[in-house]
Amino acid sequence: MGTASTPVIDPVELTRDLIRRPSVTPVDAGAMDTLERVLTGLGFTCRRMAFEGSTGAATDARIENLYARRGTASPNLCFAGHTDVVPTGEAAAWSSDPFEAEVRNGLLYGRGAVDMKGGIAAWVAAVSQILADGEPAGSLSFLITGDEEGPALHGTKKVVEALMAEGEVIDACVVGEPSSQTQLGDMIKIGRRGSLNTWITVHGKQGHVAYPARAANPAPVLVRLLAALDAHVLDEGYEAFQPSNLEITTIDIGNPATNVIPAEARARLNIRFNPAQTGDGLIDWLNREAGRVQAETGLQITLEHMCSGEAFLTPHGPFVTAVQDAVEASTGVRPEASTTGGTSDARFIRAMCPVLELGLVGQTMHQVDERVPVAELVALTAAYRRVIETVQGQG
Amino acid sequence: MGTASTPVIDPVELTRDLIRRPSVTPVDAGAMDTLERVLTGLGFTCRRMAFEGSTGAATDARIENLYARRGTASPNLCFAGHTDVVPTGEAAAWSSDPFEAEVRNGLLYGRGAVDMKGGIAAWVAAVSQILADGEPAGSLSFLITGDEEGPALHGTKKVVEALMAEGEVIDACVVGEPSSQTQLGDMIKIGRRGSLNTWITVHGKQGHVAYPARAANPAPVLVRLLAALDAHVLDEGYEAFQPSNLEITTIDIGNPATNVIPAEARARLNIRFNPAQTGDGLIDWLNREAGRVQAETGLQITLEHMCSGEAFLTPHGPFVTAVQDAVEASTGVRPEASTTGGTSDARFIRAMCPVLELGLVGQTMHQVDERVPVAELVALTAAYRRVIETVQGQG
Repeated sequence: MGTASTPVIDPVELTRDLIRRPSVTPVDAGAMDTLERVLTGLGFTCRRMAFEGSTGAATDARIENLYARRGTASPNLCFAGHTDVVPTGEAAAWSSDPFEAEVRNGLLYGRGAVDMKGGIAAWVAAVSQILADGEPAGSLSFLITGDEEGPALHGTKKVVEALMAEGEVIDACVVGEPSSQTQLGDMIKIGRRGSLNTWITVHGKQGHVAYPARAANPAPVLVRLLAALDAHVLDEGYEAFQPSNLEITTIDIGNPATNVIPAEARARLNIRFNPAQTGDGLIDWLNREAGRVQAETGLQITLEHMCSGEAFLTPHGPFVTAVQDAVEASTGVRPEASTTGGTSDARFIRAMCPVLELGLVGQTMHQVDERVPVAELVALTAAYRRVIETVQGQG
Repeated sequence: MGTASTPVIDPVELTRDLIRRPSVTPVDAGAMDTLERVLTGLGFTCRRMAFEGSTGAATDARIENLYARRGTASPNLCFAGHTDVVPTGEAAAWSSDPFEAEVRNGLLYGRGAVDMKGGIAAWVAAVSQILADGEPAGSLSFLITGDEEGPALHGTKKVVEALMAEGEVIDACVVGEPSSQTQLGDMIKIGRRGSLNTWITVHGKQGHVAYPARAANPAPVLVRLLAALDAHVLDEGYEAFQPSNLEITTIDIGNPATNVIPAEARARLNIRFNPAQTGDGLIDWLNREAGRVQAETGLQITLEHMCSGEAFLTPHGPFVTAVQDAVEASTGVRPEASTTGGTSDARFIRAMCPVLELGLVGQTMHQVDERVPVAELVALTAAYRRVIETVQGQG
């Protein structure tokens, strides 16, 4: 594959091509094919990895994934992202068709413009510019999923498991999520908190308020448990992270009768936790606390837990510094290395290598009239190119 | 009015006549007319006292009440009760029409048989037997309302206020509620706890669970307030009363989203309190506690209170002892003087005179197939007669 023979990709046109594939999770709509054709043209070896569940549930939908690699040398710098997008919401509320990718007044409108077809296109364009100048050191790869906005069961998680099982090595990874806050390059995410939801049910015995001895009120038992959980300090923070935080997101009894002691009381918690905690450790703690209150009160307490992601942190080190240096050199802004916000697929990739998130300004993501300035796509392409050159230059 | 000229009333037939008037609160359906005719025939001077509200709300319905008195001498022994009944529930589930008053196997079936048309009929029958034997000492009276099972705004409360305003004297009162537990005469109620409902709303600020600093979660504030209220010992009891008791009857947030901090959290309490407390005193305490938690957390807390009755107690004394003696002499069972259970109109009458509740076995009250043994109506008539003679004999 001669470098002279590879095309130079326009990030705006590739973003538009991708937006025109209405790939609302779990539908692919040809988005992965579009990307695969471009990467093949750039000399990448593309492997489609599709996964699906077996129970027939909606979360079992067949998901398209793509792992593409160019070269076999180390280090292998990977770009990770997703072609799926969230629904448009009320399509009529958009000022143009959300899948038409219209450019108006220097702004490219469309679902996925920011989150994150624009990011994918910018990295592809950056790679094409580097290849046009010569053969890079090391390998470049793409790990692209069609299941990031959905249940994320058959996407990056499964691809990472498969790659690790066969011994594939990725040395560092940039996830192209829209990490910038108000200005391109002002923030990278080097970690994310984990998230645990817990559903609590206290089983009591219904009765008349005038005869409490014949009933067993679950409400004060739930209050006692929640007060204990809320008062507990999980930790004081972890390196760059805020302290882990528990929020009571709902409490529901739904008893309309003023003279009736209810039979059941339910609540739900969400814990956002830093790497000082693990999902399993928190579940153990919650179960112990519930067990203690159950023993003290005699009322049965059942818990259900769903940990949708462990915390991760890529420590400040050569990779993070190289990315910060490159972004600053390209944009004039030195990105803050942040650990705030929700989860991303970085939580799966951290098992393989240092990972961080760097991408567009995320302000219109998931909204009606999601849009990106054309100039920002060009600027991100330049920043990505500098990142690739700087990180691979270390190798 | 010659005693020889008054009829002797059959308690079973009068109960049936009353049941056949489907007087589901606030409907009277002629029940009060039926009773008034009988009492007039026994020489009572009957005064109909109707009250209604002015706001047009359902609780404003016009309510029929009756105050009937025979004689002007002291002491004036009053019987209090209500002709209104609770709804039938699913009428098809009854083994006979709930307003047909069918007698089968010695049992009289019908809505109100126990609560408390049977009690009214038994006292009327007892009075008719006494009158047949001669003129009693003192006066006898009836205070009958059509609004005991409903909001009780335009019933006994208003009648008592009107009677007190005009200087009417009642020296003692028996309320014919079904006070017996498993055997006729095994229990009289000499007091009742008061009841206070309080609605609590904590006003927070909605937000994303990942960014708690931008929100203000009302749930832990509500939990903190409820935990403090629940942990507080109101009192250790009062004479014959159990300790005052607070129950959390519901907590409701209704937030379906696992990643959202809710804007508002609501709860409702019911406090059943003995005469060591007053409604106003409890309201002051609740307001203080809410004010303290509001000051500690910065979240606004609003409370609404509704005290549906103060606690009352008729101390053990000549009236209570006379009733216990009479019941024991008539039934062979000495009634326990209890203060358990819900409220009754005795809470209004206590402002005028010593009051207690004595009536049928209440087991089927408010249920499908409400029923009373015919023999129990006859036995209650005998017990009531003995009560009247004993209490008036003291005067």
